[in-house]
Amino acid sequence: MAAEYTKDLSTPVLTVDLDKVKRNAKDMRERFEGLGVQLRPHMKTHKTAECADIMTGGSKRCIVVSTLAEASFFADHGYDDILYAYPLPFDKVQRCAELSERLSLFHVLVDNDTALEELKRRPLNKGKVWNVWLKLDCNNGRAGVPNSNPKAQKLAQDIAATPGVELTGIYAHCGNTYVCQGQEQIKAVAQETTTSVLQFMEKLKAVGIQGLKSSIGSTPSCSHPVADMAMLSEVHPGNYVFYDVQQSLIGSCSLEDVAVRVLTRVIGHYPQRNQLLVDCGWTALSHDGGGRLPTGYAIIEGHPELKLLSMTQEHGRVEAISGQLDFTKYPLGSLLSLIPYHACATASMHPLYYIHSNGKILGTWTPTRGW
Amino acid sequence: MAAEYTKDLSTPVLTVDLDKVKRNAKDMRERFEGLGVQLRPHMKTHKTAECADIMTGGSKRCIVVSTLAEASFFADHGYDDILYAYPLPFDKVQRCAELSERLSLFHVLVDNDTALEELKRRPLNKGKVWNVWLKLDCNNGRAGVPNSNPKAQKLAQDIAATPGVELTGIYAHCGNTYVCQGQEQIKAVAQETTTSVLQFMEKLKAVGIQGLKSSIGSTPSCSHPVADMAMLSEVHPGNYVFYDVQQSLIGSCSLEDVAVRVLTRVIGHYPQRNQLLVDCGWTALSHDGGGRLPTGYAIIEGHPELKLLSMTQEHGRVEAISGQLDFTKYPLGSLLSLIPYHACATASMHPLYYIHSNGKILGTWTPTRGW
Repeated sequence: MAAEYTKDLSTPVLTVDLDKVKRNAKDMRERFEGLGVQLRPHMKTHKTAECADIMTGGSKRCIVVSTLAEASFFADHGYDDILYAYPLPFDKVQRCAELSERLSLFHVLVDNDTALEELKRRPLNKGKVWNVWLKLDCNNGRAGVPNSNPKAQKLAQDIAATPGVELTGIYAHCGNTYVCQGQEQIKAVAQETTTSVLQFMEKLKAVGIQGLKSSIGSTPSCSHPVADMAMLSEVHPGNYVFYDVQQSLIGSCSLEDVAVRVLTRVIGHYPQRNQLLVDCGWTALSHDGGGRLPTGYAIIEGHPELKLLSMTQEHGRVEAISGQLDFTKYPLGSLLSLIPYHACATASMHPLYYIHSNGKILGTWTPTRGW
Repeated sequence: MAAEYTKDLSTPVLTVDLDKVKRNAKDMRERFEGLGVQLRPHMKTHKTAECADIMTGGSKRCIVVSTLAEASFFADHGYDDILYAYPLPFDKVQRCAELSERLSLFHVLVDNDTALEELKRRPLNKGKVWNVWLKLDCNNGRAGVPNSNPKAQKLAQDIAATPGVELTGIYAHCGNTYVCQGQEQIKAVAQETTTSVLQFMEKLKAVGIQGLKSSIGSTPSCSHPVADMAMLSEVHPGNYVFYDVQQSLIGSCSLEDVAVRVLTRVIGHYPQRNQLLVDCGWTALSHDGGGRLPTGYAIIEGHPELKLLSMTQEHGRVEAISGQLDFTKYPLGSLLSLIPYHACATASMHPLYYIHSNGKILGTWTPTRGW
């Protein structure tokens, strides 16, 4: 049965359960307080000041962002100690320099020599130095120097030896946890990444580079940390504040923990092809997941008999997983609640999120967009 | 070789070739002027006032929208005669009523009895009547009453007989042209849809319902109209103003006609896995097309040897279609130009479009979003 507050919402709409958000944030904070590791939450999933406030426990310090638009947005909202966790893009060096000069701590990420040259070409003013993290690729296969490649140590040494630049830490993203199923596999990847980073730090110590920070992250690995992660300085998960169907399938969370929904209304009955139409197309859900769930592009809450088969821009086709639809169960105008496959992708489609608690809408959050 | 103007653009960015937009708009306008059919262009692809102005030839009249956010946006920009081509959503009747009372012509779409009841429950003020189009499904399989279903005629008669409501026309979308390959198949669908609509109009005439408008649309069918479409009152294509890879594969256009690009920069070389990274993830391109092109999620202009293999939120993995990448051809920081698979989906990811002509950036267009 849909909560009372939903009936006045115009659909499609992204709703956020504030109590679940707070619980997810608190669980993650307490988990790493317990391990003595700094949590540096990633903002890319929600991109809102309000959710950042919850994730940082009100400190407004120590966050990760995926775009400079986010960095500027959070700086404008009083945030500091912002890590731009993206291979330094050469068209954005000036904007990074300005943020470095404006904030007390702005961190950039580097995984190649040319990026270091770009930083040298733009020395910082105001007595600042570039705070640089070396991006290490510990078997994830996206950005970063492979941890086993001798170039990684060479680049770390070059960064550390460059005037005006400080080697702040070693950063690895274990995105390879996204192909895991269950805690055992997640922990194996978390262990491998942690070990790789710590061994790399030891190699640097042996050549006189000490006092570096270290950070690994991903929502699966930080939802089920291994003991050795206590030897890291920081972790940087992000999606956990919302979670989603994908995370529940990986084993990061239960479906109960997922804090976001797309509410949609039934706009048509088409018995001749045994289908409903709903007012949620890919503009409200995204195509993420490719419709490969047994229930299609999302899970339709409370209706395991339904599948979101396909979407066009503003329409979603819903059918029965088997047998004939009983259309009387889904009257025209009635609400269905979709649990998104990937919360980051779904949230990115919405100019506004509706926040609810105890069955009431409390207000809206407005994310930043662009780059 | 990338145009000079591109070098100062921060990436990822959506660029629009104004000359191609004007040519695509003019071709479509002239095509239907030649047939004596009113062009009612769809705004859903771009959602900007500037592009609407080009598509309507400056008249600011006679458009189709997919959301009420678009309807309000265009009304605020001085547009009128707006058709909201979406099965009337019951949570938006009041907003539709206000637009009907505010504009000289605002049209809604109905495909079921309950929607008609909803309109009756909210009679219009200011001496207005509801302008209602009956949505017919001519073998497309999305919204609409199937043209062969006796309910279609019954609903048309009920609408026509309802006080305060005017049956304005019959509307069909031939989205089934999207599975066509080549003009012959496109024309077969266009012919079938046109014939179905015209035969349905004849049936209505036989029961005394005359003077209705008729409209069919889709970019493929309107790029290659059949002669009988001259017997329709209107057509309502939209994507044609940008076109995209999908339309070129269907046969609606050539790749040369595609007016939009996502510009992206190389941010990493990863020889150990024979891959580049670019700064275009799904936030800049969308997942539309599912990566099923031989070149993956897009066509990389001027580089038939490259494939956009996969994307995460802000990263794109590019690899060679065969053999080893010659990394010297794609220096770090250099630009690649992506031709989107689906322009509607890609444009929907961008808060701003950059408009260029004759190798110069002329300015930006800001689309409306939401519902």
